Amino acid sequence: MNQAPFAYEGLERIFHERGRLAVCTCLVANPEGMSFTALQEACALTDGNLNRHLHALAETSIVTLERVRGSGRPTTTVRITESGRERFLAYIDQLEAVVRAVQESERSAAANSALRLATS
Amino acid sequence: MNQAPFAYEGLERIFHERGRLAVCTCLVANPEGMSFTALQEACALTDGNLNRHLHALAETSIVTLERVRGSGRPTTTVRITESGRERFLAYIDQLEAVVRAVQESERSAAANSALRLATS
Repeated sequence: MNQAPFAYEGLERIFHERGRLAVCTCLVANPEGMSFTALQEACALTDGNLNRHLHALAETSIVTLERVRGSGRPTTTVRITESGRERFLAYIDQLEAVVRAVQESERSAAANSALRLATS
Repeated sequence: MNQAPFAYEGLERIFHERGRLAVCTCLVANPEGMSFTALQEACALTDGNLNRHLHALAETSIVTLERVRGSGRPTTTVRITESGRERFLAYIDQLEAVVRAVQESERSAAANSALRLATS
């Protein structure tokens, strides 16, 4: 039996941060990769914040960063890796389970409360 | 138009932390309140961690802490407030929207990839 039903160990800390959740959601939607600038605009993150998140995600092999030198300024293309995508989707599954658990207990709390009113 | 579709400002930071998410989920399931000890066991948190989270939640009026002196040791009963419950459920709604967005983009990425395979 699960001793601590609300421990949520499946919620990987690397993904459970608002900025990194935004970045990963965005990259799953754009598997071909995104430029640093496009990612920054989509997620409303500052340069520093996005940089910090991308380094954390690259260190754990969730994303790859590719520096592209064209005719103009070099740009960085960010892609989610296959294993990063799988880990992120597992995190999202766990998040869905939490959402369902809350909605379920909210429904039974409301039903119990209606029952108490009806029988009082 | 939404300039930053992935900014997720609705994900209130107070709830978007694994320990506090566990505590609030637990308290929504137990609207009559829970003892500190029961909450600690259900969420697998240390004394210090649970204390820290409860103080943060009490400061923002999400929970109330009631110290009860009986015949034995005093115990603390923790309850989620009505406004705390509403804010938490709004956070959960936003979380559900994120889960759906990821699942949706995952499905279209899979469909696009199948299409590329079929036409290549």
